[in-house]
Amino acid sequence: MKKIIVQKFGGSSVANVECIKRVAKRVVEYKKKGFHVVVVVSALGGTTDELIELSNCITDNPSDREMDMLLSTGEQISVALLAMAIHSFGFEAISFTGAQVGIITDKSHTKARILEINTIRIKQELDSDRIVIVAGFQGVTLDQHITTLGRGGSDLTAVALAKQLKASECEIYTDVKGIYTTDPRIEPKAVKLDEITYDEMLEMASLGAQVMQARSIEVAKKFDVPIHVRSSFEKDTGTMIIREVKRMEDVVVRGITLNNQEAKVTVCDVPDKPGVAARLFKKLSFNGINVDMIVQNVSHTRRTDISFTVKKTDIPKTKNTLRKFAKSIDTGEVVYDLDIARISIVGVGMKSHHGVAADMFDSLAKNKINIEMISTSDISISCIISKKSANKAIRALHKKFQLINN
Amino acid sequence: MKKIIVQKFGGSSVANVECIKRVAKRVVEYKKKGFHVVVVVSALGGTTDELIELSNCITDNPSDREMDMLLSTGEQISVALLAMAIHSFGFEAISFTGAQVGIITDKSHTKARILEINTIRIKQELDSDRIVIVAGFQGVTLDQHITTLGRGGSDLTAVALAKQLKASECEIYTDVKGIYTTDPRIEPKAVKLDEITYDEMLEMASLGAQVMQARSIEVAKKFDVPIHVRSSFEKDTGTMIIREVKRMEDVVVRGITLNNQEAKVTVCDVPDKPGVAARLFKKLSFNGINVDMIVQNVSHTRRTDISFTVKKTDIPKTKNTLRKFAKSIDTGEVVYDLDIARISIVGVGMKSHHGVAADMFDSLAKNKINIEMISTSDISISCIISKKSANKAIRALHKKFQLINN
Repeated sequence: MKKIIVQKFGGSSVANVECIKRVAKRVVEYKKKGFHVVVVVSALGGTTDELIELSNCITDNPSDREMDMLLSTGEQISVALLAMAIHSFGFEAISFTGAQVGIITDKSHTKARILEINTIRIKQELDSDRIVIVAGFQGVTLDQHITTLGRGGSDLTAVALAKQLKASECEIYTDVKGIYTTDPRIEPKAVKLDEITYDEMLEMASLGAQVMQARSIEVAKKFDVPIHVRSSFEKDTGTMIIREVKRMEDVVVRGITLNNQEAKVTVCDVPDKPGVAARLFKKLSFNGINVDMIVQNVSHTRRTDISFTVKKTDIPKTKNTLRKFAKSIDTGEVVYDLDIARISIVGVGMKSHHGVAADMFDSLAKNKINIEMISTSDISISCIISKKSANKAIRALHKKFQLINN
Repeated sequence: MKKIIVQKFGGSSVANVECIKRVAKRVVEYKKKGFHVVVVVSALGGTTDELIELSNCITDNPSDREMDMLLSTGEQISVALLAMAIHSFGFEAISFTGAQVGIITDKSHTKARILEINTIRIKQELDSDRIVIVAGFQGVTLDQHITTLGRGGSDLTAVALAKQLKASECEIYTDVKGIYTTDPRIEPKAVKLDEITYDEMLEMASLGAQVMQARSIEVAKKFDVPIHVRSSFEKDTGTMIIREVKRMEDVVVRGITLNNQEAKVTVCDVPDKPGVAARLFKKLSFNGINVDMIVQNVSHTRRTDISFTVKKTDIPKTKNTLRKFAKSIDTGEVVYDLDIARISIVGVGMKSHHGVAADMFDSLAKNKINIEMISTSDISISCIISKKSANKAIRALHKKFQLINN
């Protein structure tokens, strides 16, 4: 039986007609090598934004169902064009929408979850020796409403298909060569990783690395789908995302991430009574504001300061919420700081190494970078620092943890 | 029980976002009047051409199936946007693709025929008091391949839905006020008709009038669906297309059409033997060339001239075919005339009136217009004349048959 390979090409890989031809060539190479090839494609670069722009001209508040109806056309256009391009190289190919191929989701429009995939159709076409092209990012409910899986959802389509088809590999093609120790635009000495564990990749994705959607890594981890992140512009192998890597415990820090999408909010002089903090965060959550890091100073008086981070885009909502509420619980002023950055170091090796946090703080201190907030997990340590020090911090940490020799 | 109305808006009615809002307003008016409203929409003006252009960049010879996959996105975009616009007016609406709504077709991609429509879904939504918006021009095969119905296919979607839903009326919104006695750009005195029969409309559509797709009129006739062709920019009533009109027999000529898409081919000195003409037209047909009018002169010698018309776009193919074939059956030269026009008068009243043809020829003769070929049907007479005389001929006939007083 032939091996099945799933290849996913994102928006930057299919930015225009020339790119589509290049993708077709790449797909055909694997077909020639003897694989059954299933291709997942995103919308042509820019298409999704254009469609959103169109809907914005109609209404400020489009229904989620109609938004899915609208946006799912983007991927349908790419799959049809890619099929045509593959035909023009003399190979058989057939395109499918998420609905046609049986990607069944729940009813949560714009962020649907895949419930099941019926692969009968795909297998039939593979058995007829066709290359199968599936529209990423989309599915259909049991009663035939079109859904989308949220931004980056094409990754999820690819991983879920790879799992369901028992594919030998799931390739995620992108415009970078793989996963780097940190953003090479900030630290030119950043190194491409040959391997990274699901857990590390998950942590890096949630802490700011934008290569892959976090949910799709979760699914890959759950079902042990090996993922190969690589460039659609080069032949070199990229980074394998897998369960266990060689010398896993030896490498303390696998990568460093930067997230500058957050802002810090400090509510001053909060009465230090049981239940006040709870009421504050309940109120924020009720108004749809996602709070990330939280720090409360130890109180020596009857009042304390509470700091937390939220997405910058949620700042207007947060201001609205706190304007009335802060008064009602009798706090002092509320201070907003938009010029912050979150720097995180990630690595499963941390579990078995002591002093990693100390090394991080020490390195930042030596570079005269002030730490405003700290947060840790099993395999990561994050510091909030001022935005202007972010790049310096990344370079310092990259050197400190010797990621160059990774 | 509420009456159902089907309203179809073509590409010019949904040319841009402003137009979509206007359409939404129009739809909502009918909802307020107490109708159940089903709306059929074409792709936004220009979208289909843009998509075709995209496919042209990929390949000269796209597969019909993938072309349908590509083009059907155009209508999916419009229905989603129209639903959003209707929502913004505070009304409930839901959009569907042809596949979702159960417009089942045969497998003839790019020119599929509707086999059946399952209206359960639409009726459910109408019963929930929603406005139902259906993507025109598209359907789906029984095994879930997306198909399209050919250019102008949205008319067919509307008529077929009106029939299946037993709608009280099927409105075709367009950028003209209705059906005119002739093209008002040629004869400013042309008059909008209040009524026209299916047969007359069919004849006019096949003879050059471009307001409605001929197949959809056939279907409307077959199932007696009254059609109202009207302007999406004005409130005035347009033209009703129905089985029988008032004073049907009194009006001899209902309208005059012009077709300047054809060319005349004359094969000179054809041996006047049985079977030669048959071989000639078989050969043309075999090469995919549609021959329209045919005239063979009465032969006084052993040789004769055969003239026929083909679409101008088929002229290269015709030349290729005849280059070798004309020699093989030993004819003289082949003459091509691209500067011709076909002028036709149409009216069911002709059946019961004598001398209509004579009146037509007489009128043309008085205007010194030479008739090169003649063809007649039950309810129409067509003359091929030189292209430069076309407008003069139309104005002369419009006056002769007193269409002004229609």
